[in-house]
Amino acid sequence: MDVLRLRQLLEGVQTGRVSLDEALRELTDLPFADLGYAMVDHHRALRQGTPEVIFGLGKTPEQIVGIAQELARTGQNVLITRLDPEKAVAVTQALSLLRYHELARTATWEQAPIEPLGKLPVALVCAGTADIPVAEECAETLRLLGIRIERLYDVGVAGIHRLLNRRELFNHVSLAIVVAGMEGALPSVVGGLVAIPVIAVPTSVGYGAAFGGVTALACMLTSCASGVTVCNINNGFGAAFAAARILRMTRS
Amino acid sequence: MDVLRLRQLLEGVQTGRVSLDEALRELTDLPFADLGYAMVDHHRALRQGTPEVIFGLGKTPEQIVGIAQELARTGQNVLITRLDPEKAVAVTQALSLLRYHELARTATWEQAPIEPLGKLPVALVCAGTADIPVAEECAETLRLLGIRIERLYDVGVAGIHRLLNRRELFNHVSLAIVVAGMEGALPSVVGGLVAIPVIAVPTSVGYGAAFGGVTALACMLTSCASGVTVCNINNGFGAAFAAARILRMTRS
Amino acid sequence: MDVLRLRQLLEGVQTGRVSLDEALRELTDLPFADLGYAMVDHHRALRQGTPEVIFGLGKTPEQIVGIAQELARTGQNVLITRLDPEKAVAVTQALSLLRYHELARTATWEQAPIEPLGKLPVALVCAGTADIPVAEECAETLRLLGIRIERLYDVGVAGIHRLLNRRELFNHVSLAIVVAGMEGALPSVVGGLVAIPVIAVPTSVGYGAAFGGVTALACMLTSCASGVTVCNINNGFGAAFAAARILRMTRS
Amino acid sequence: MDVLRLRQLLEGVQTGRVSLDEALRELTDLPFADLGYAMVDHHRALRQGTPEVIFGLGKTPEQIVGIAQELARTGQNVLITRLDPEKAVAVTQALSLLRYHELARTATWEQAPIEPLGKLPVALVCAGTADIPVAEECAETLRLLGIRIERLYDVGVAGIHRLLNRRELFNHVSLAIVVAGMEGALPSVVGGLVAIPVIAVPTSVGYGAAFGGVTALACMLTSCASGVTVCNINNGFGAAFAAARILRMTRS
Amino acid sequence: MDVLRLRQLLEGVQTGRVSLDEALRELTDLPFADLGYAMVDHHRALRQGTPEVIFGLGKTPEQIVGIAQELARTGQNVLITRLDPEKAVAVTQALSLLRYHELARTATWEQAPIEPLGKLPVALVCAGTADIPVAEECAETLRLLGIRIERLYDVGVAGIHRLLNRRELFNHVSLAIVVAGMEGALPSVVGGLVAIPVIAVPTSVGYGAAFGGVTALACMLTSCASGVTVCNINNGFGAAFAAARILRMTRS
Amino acid sequence: MDVLRLRQLLEGVQTGRVSLDEALRELTDLPFADLGYAMVDHHRALRQGTPEVIFGLGKTPEQIVGIAQELARTGQNVLITRLDPEKAVAVTQALSLLRYHELARTATWEQAPIEPLGKLPVALVCAGTADIPVAEECAETLRLLGIRIERLYDVGVAGIHRLLNRRELFNHVSLAIVVAGMEGALPSVVGGLVAIPVIAVPTSVGYGAAFGGVTALACMLTSCASGVTVCNINNGFGAAFAAARILRMTRS
Amino acid sequence: MDVLRLRQLLEGVQTGRVSLDEALRELTDLPFADLGYAMVDHHRALRQGTPEVIFGLGKTPEQIVGIAQELARTGQNVLITRLDPEKAVAVTQALSLLRYHELARTATWEQAPIEPLGKLPVALVCAGTADIPVAEECAETLRLLGIRIERLYDVGVAGIHRLLNRRELFNHVSLAIVVAGMEGALPSVVGGLVAIPVIAVPTSVGYGAAFGGVTALACMLTSCASGVTVCNINNGFGAAFAAARILRMTRS
Amino acid sequence: MDVLRLRQLLEGVQTGRVSLDEALRELTDLPFADLGYAMVDHHRALRQGTPEVIFGLGKTPEQIVGIAQELARTGQNVLITRLDPEKAVAVTQALSLLRYHELARTATWEQAPIEPLGKLPVALVCAGTADIPVAEECAETLRLLGIRIERLYDVGVAGIHRLLNRRELFNHVSLAIVVAGMEGALPSVVGGLVAIPVIAVPTSVGYGAAFGGVTALACMLTSCASGVTVCNINNGFGAAFAAARILRMTRS
Repeated sequence: MDVLRLRQLLEGVQTGRVSLDEALRELTDLPFADLGYAMVDHHRALRQGTPEVIFGLGKTPEQIVGIAQELARTGQNVLITRLDPEKAVAVTQALSLLRYHELARTATWEQAPIEPLGKLPVALVCAGTADIPVAEECAETLRLLGIRIERLYDVGVAGIHRLLNRRELFNHVSLAIVVAGMEGALPSVVGGLVAIPVIAVPTSVGYGAAFGGVTALACMLTSCASGVTVCNINNGFGAAFAAARILRMTRS
Repeated sequence: MDVLRLRQLLEGVQTGRVSLDEALRELTDLPFADLGYAMVDHHRALRQGTPEVIFGLGKTPEQIVGIAQELARTGQNVLITRLDPEKAVAVTQALSLLRYHELARTATWEQAPIEPLGKLPVALVCAGTADIPVAEECAETLRLLGIRIERLYDVGVAGIHRLLNRRELFNHVSLAIVVAGMEGALPSVVGGLVAIPVIAVPTSVGYGAAFGGVTALACMLTSCASGVTVCNINNGFGAAFAAARILRMTRS
Repeated sequence: MDVLRLRQLLEGVQTGRVSLDEALRELTDLPFADLGYAMVDHHRALRQGTPEVIFGLGKTPEQIVGIAQELARTGQNVLITRLDPEKAVAVTQALSLLRYHELARTATWEQAPIEPLGKLPVALVCAGTADIPVAEECAETLRLLGIRIERLYDVGVAGIHRLLNRRELFNHVSLAIVVAGMEGALPSVVGGLVAIPVIAVPTSVGYGAAFGGVTALACMLTSCASGVTVCNINNGFGAAFAAARILRMTRS
Repeated sequence: MDVLRLRQLLEGVQTGRVSLDEALRELTDLPFADLGYAMVDHHRALRQGTPEVIFGLGKTPEQIVGIAQELARTGQNVLITRLDPEKAVAVTQALSLLRYHELARTATWEQAPIEPLGKLPVALVCAGTADIPVAEECAETLRLLGIRIERLYDVGVAGIHRLLNRRELFNHVSLAIVVAGMEGALPSVVGGLVAIPVIAVPTSVGYGAAFGGVTALACMLTSCASGVTVCNINNGFGAAFAAARILRMTRS
Repeated sequence: MDVLRLRQLLEGVQTGRVSLDEALRELTDLPFADLGYAMVDHHRALRQGTPEVIFGLGKTPEQIVGIAQELARTGQNVLITRLDPEKAVAVTQALSLLRYHELARTATWEQAPIEPLGKLPVALVCAGTADIPVAEECAETLRLLGIRIERLYDVGVAGIHRLLNRRELFNHVSLAIVVAGMEGALPSVVGGLVAIPVIAVPTSVGYGAAFGGVTALACMLTSCASGVTVCNINNGFGAAFAAARILRMTRS
Repeated sequence: MDVLRLRQLLEGVQTGRVSLDEALRELTDLPFADLGYAMVDHHRALRQGTPEVIFGLGKTPEQIVGIAQELARTGQNVLITRLDPEKAVAVTQALSLLRYHELARTATWEQAPIEPLGKLPVALVCAGTADIPVAEECAETLRLLGIRIERLYDVGVAGIHRLLNRRELFNHVSLAIVVAGMEGALPSVVGGLVAIPVIAVPTSVGYGAAFGGVTALACMLTSCASGVTVCNINNGFGAAFAAARILRMTRS
Repeated sequence: MDVLRLRQLLEGVQTGRVSLDEALRELTDLPFADLGYAMVDHHRALRQGTPEVIFGLGKTPEQIVGIAQELARTGQNVLITRLDPEKAVAVTQALSLLRYHELARTATWEQAPIEPLGKLPVALVCAGTADIPVAEECAETLRLLGIRIERLYDVGVAGIHRLLNRRELFNHVSLAIVVAGMEGALPSVVGGLVAIPVIAVPTSVGYGAAFGGVTALACMLTSCASGVTVCNINNGFGAAFAAARILRMTRS
Repeated sequence: MDVLRLRQLLEGVQTGRVSLDEALRELTDLPFADLGYAMVDHHRALRQGTPEVIFGLGKTPEQIVGIAQELARTGQNVLITRLDPEKAVAVTQALSLLRYHELARTATWEQAPIEPLGKLPVALVCAGTADIPVAEECAETLRLLGIRIERLYDVGVAGIHRLLNRRELFNHVSLAIVVAGMEGALPSVVGGLVAIPVIAVPTSVGYGAAFGGVTALACMLTSCASGVTVCNINNGFGAAFAAARILRMTRS
């Protein structure tokens, strides 16, 4: 609601075209209509086919099922992340249309067509085999966001030629999401090779001084390659959403 | 060097148009011509007016002066970051064309026109007065990158109305860089309000449990607003470069 | 025992009204009679209907049953916190009057009427669904302390409008307990909105840089909203007791 | 602005008593009038004599002077915290009415009478001599908030009799603020002795395993005395504001 | 081997009473005979009835059984610590003379009489019920070392009167071992009450900011009571051995 | 591919002996042939009998089996590390030629003769019984690398004579790998006794302040014995590879 | 005050030998006389020549001078610890009888004869030259406590023979205080060599992974030598007091 | 003293050629002669030209001068590390033959010829300009150890082509020392490129999440390149000594 609409409303009240109760009801909602996030968010979701997302960690299967049903009612696609296999059994039994992706630990309820987002695909780069679950959480989220993917897996810096060998891939993507655990050096190298946006995702892969992903995280934050930005440990989902924020911007 | 050029070169050798030594010299350089980063980086810099950057921390004034002179020789603009006031005195005495920005702790040597980057300005949001030096390092870097800025300062979450009051600003910017110390909650709130890319910069402002910026950093990484990405503590420079990566992508 | 009583006792000895052994016995007990905490604590509990509390973590089912029986003998209500489901089975089998609250992981043995405490209810604000178990531990404790509750759940800062939408609730409560995990920013925002006491409870909800609740804890401690105080991670019980300390004070 | 006022305004427009422009102007401010924090905060400050506060850390003397002048214009009292002696020289030179408190590292500009807050004084308990600066920051803030103080200094737990000896003091105060560094055990003991609210303030006093106050902080958070709440390390100011929140609540 | 024995040996060689090969063999062993730790340790064990100890953590049941049998061959008493219940089943099946103490998680094989150590008993002070397993590991070790114990359990600082009420106990003990988790403040209070040696044992009891015992550990190390020394987290065994070192010293 | 080969190739094209397409194909591979890591690595493996290694942590049994089969196809020996017993069952069922080493948690598929590496054996020194699994992971890796081992187990610094007693062993080894948990002091002592290279491996053995191996790691890094280098916690495999790097160097 | 004295006092009142006011005055002090810490501490100090101690860190020179004068009034010896050179100048100017010990950073005001404590001296063992200031703080404290010292400096574990060479020293001391920084391994080795009490003092000597003494501290806490107890980082004073607690015990 | 010498000595006693007192005196020293470290160390130093080293951190200028004079008396070269410029002034004034190296913060007193060690030089690789002081500490130490150096500076991973461009350098060195701060990824890349020993040295260069070098340290420890070993943060000296251990081994 902008000032124009507000003036119209008040003129309606002044002229009697709008009843006092109608105006009251609309203005009572005003803080949110005016703030515009809730409604706009809702509309954008409808327009863009953005999936509704449920973060599964720390929720009971009953809660997940309840929220999923509520979200699905609007006809939107639903994405559940961090759904461990035990919960997945309970949830998929209750919701037969849900499809579970074991590697990514996500589940999706796809009922609406997915509108493509971005002209070029996104490069999804992954350092080691053990980082793949995080990369696949990212991939599933990208897929539901309508973003195409070019996978470049198992190209860790200890064998730098594997990355260099396929570096021309970066000429045909819009941005790069780089997933790495252990010492987490891969985004630094990628960030030095390319000029496109680089989103780094540390993983908890490793042991000892890997400190559950904190080393990879800190490594990426202190990257000597300028302009690399970082997500939380294992947060493949967040990287995908960050990519969508960028690609949506470029669409307009 | 792509396959086309390679075929031309070999045909030149085959037909005698290219001497064996000429071909040998070009192919000996191949790994780097072919890899293309060094040269391409250099050319991109010339084309785009990207400033050459010197990270001042841990370098002696003599080293800084030497590197700046070397870089400036090509006619490019030079940006020095993390230049504390004591060093700045020594460096600006040696390099009279250098201009020091005390608040941002940066120095610039501007000799080339700055080509604009991005149709819309970038929102530079800052939680508190003490965070301003980091925001200004970002602002100076953005300026040299050709990016316009809309400042939104002193809008920390403890007075959430200050931010909400000016939220319409986000309708007219391409992306938001959000700088905050202490509890670092501002990017979460901004990320929930807008759909554009949000780059979060934690600062070391605060004491005690602020842990020198680690709390703000961790807070931003665990943000419940999806798709916010994060830079290192106090890294205003890095956020500006990340913005440039995004804006450059959308230009093509 | 104050100085008056002491003078009376000595006069009694002087005049022979009090035998030497009687005086000796009373004076030997003096430090504790005089310190008065044990007895006074006991009496206060009887007067106020404060539940007797057993912290279940690290105790065997046998120990819990034994302490509960001992406490219950006095006719008081008993509250057991941090009682995981496995122990709960053993404990409730032994104590048939005990009622287990699965979400809150508490058990209660209610045999005395609960005297109301506080004219206004307490606002119990909760950021996300996964934080609810901590909020409910708090709710159960508040209930046994005689304190009414207004729940305000799922109002995390990434959708700040959800909180703002119901902000008038704060006009009708005495104080606010704010429970949040992940980045823990909610108490900062609430603390900036209201002038009533705000007690913040970080939870261990989140992963990676949430560091098991330490990020939320540090975030709350460095809150830029003045006068917010903080409890231990997941300590819903402690927040309820802090509320009771405040409400009891205002009663007198 | 509540629904009643909104209805009155609209009726005014409907009946012509309120011009369209007047209504428009008031409703344009609505999000904040309706949200009510900014205005209400401002009014409360005027009514209650709450000092306006400037957090000095990380601000330049010029910034501090500028903000202080702006705040002082309204006739309010101004409190500056975390003002180190060097800055204090510059600031007090510019603002001759400012009075610097060296021990507390605060400065005050008192131009309005301070309205008393709370019937009983607050107990300000302090473990050791080196913790006094933090306690005095708290004391200065309490003083400007209109709250009386009973000091109980140098009563650390290694000489528990010093505290017990004066425990009757707690019968005549509304709440206790307990300041302690090193092992930070004092709030646990006080919290076990009294039923009134206890606000714990850890200090950075100590060395080695005191970890700059983190040990005292963690100690207070894990206190076995139920219902003790905690402020940030060295945050005497915050404890005073938390006390004001409680005392204000009980006034109404 | 002392200088006397060395002289005798050389005289034996000089006079021909000792063959060159015999002397050579003895002197080749000399560094260790002379250093004397291995042998002396062994002899001291025989003289003093010190139990031979096996640290069970990280050893397989087979390894534990093998070492226990080897140690027991000499007729000594054997103590196994950190033996979790699962391993205990396997180990006690193999070694029928072994007796398992579930609370202390120790097992003992007692075949030699235990010689008393120390004229007075040791005070074993314990803050909470959940700390008892660590205290009992200590108690079992003390028992096998021949040291009598006065238990003083459940006297945490939140109810300081419980400790003060029984403080005369400290007049009749040689030293105090104080076991506490959570905020770990008990040793500070005890250390301020008594002049005897105080050995502090932090436990991992607690949650959140208890950080698995690190808070209690740091709290004890920074104790404001002078001369309290500290063992590792949960190391009841080590405290008992430290007590034995002290009591043995005073015997001579 | 060196310059000589490049000249030959170009001469072939010039003279028509090499077709343009043949040259093109070879030169397209050039960056990697020229960089030489991939090919050279491969050739070195063939020449030296270096085992191909699979890091089992975080990989599914199916992934491990697949990679092992791929590696084994070339006739090389395969080493799988960090293979826990549950996975080992699945993997060895699928690959019948694989042999599992339970203590070392490694599996090997040996189909090629192992060429000896190094004239002298390596000393494998181990502080305590619980450190043996890490030492054995190292031992198995050394064995497949063709390096002989002298074991010196259970010689922790608390019984320094055990180490000194066998110190002559160090006269007959090329280098020492020292494995220790808890306080991790053994490499400091060994490093002070010998002039040969010392590679330190911290283990996660211990509890409380052992911090999962971080204490041993930090202890080794700050060793007062000059020139000791350190591997990651529990990284017996890495120490073996570091030894191979040294021994290979001395062979040439 | 024991029961005997209490009976005598009451009999005095009963028989009129003691006036009511006299008894009242003495009994008003009773809680402390009866609790016995304050008075007994005071008396013990007089009897034993224990120095009164001022911890200088965080106190102003004025505070230190004031407390020192107050303490010195009773004729006792005064010890000031952690007195840095700048403060020492101010303090010694005000108190001309004070003697400053630069290496130990202590000052002493000796006016009473020091009564010897302990039959045998204490071994003061120190790993490196940089640890000496901590050792000397300990030495100065021991001296004022009347305890003789055998110094054994610069015997770090990297040159283990230096320690072994003088190991017979341990046969003639009552206990050992072992001071070490960097990797902090010395107490483990000493604890394995001797059966007497070993008090370990970590120092902040070292850099990088020494983490300001935390590594040495953790190393000592996880020592594989049983029964070593530990003081805070750099706490030479505390180790001396712990020694006094032990030696006093053995005197009775 | 080996067995041969021991037999000779005993034969001397047997035959009367050696007096009993002479033998006694020699054998009393035996543990150390026999242990052989002190003497052998000394002799090896003389034979090998190893410099005597003084670690300057935490030592007073007087102590440094005293130790240097003592060491220099034997005619050896002396190396002082971690000598900050202020101390250097005092030390070089006292010792006029000492030469200070400002960048490396070392001082050397060279009076003996330096015997070359190693056939090939060592590669000294350095990521950034700010890491050079650590690299130069290493270089100075290597120089005094007689080891030649090939410097490869400013080749951080963000510009990977700079390293690859000069990779043939690694074909002509014996081992590589790789110095890097910030994210510390360079040793991983180097370790993947070469088969020679790689010694990694993290530096404290960087800010924020660089955590004073801990991130680079952890990154190197978790390197995915097998067989890289690591030194303490900023420990260029230690890396040089580790190189000497390896090169000395290969000489024999």
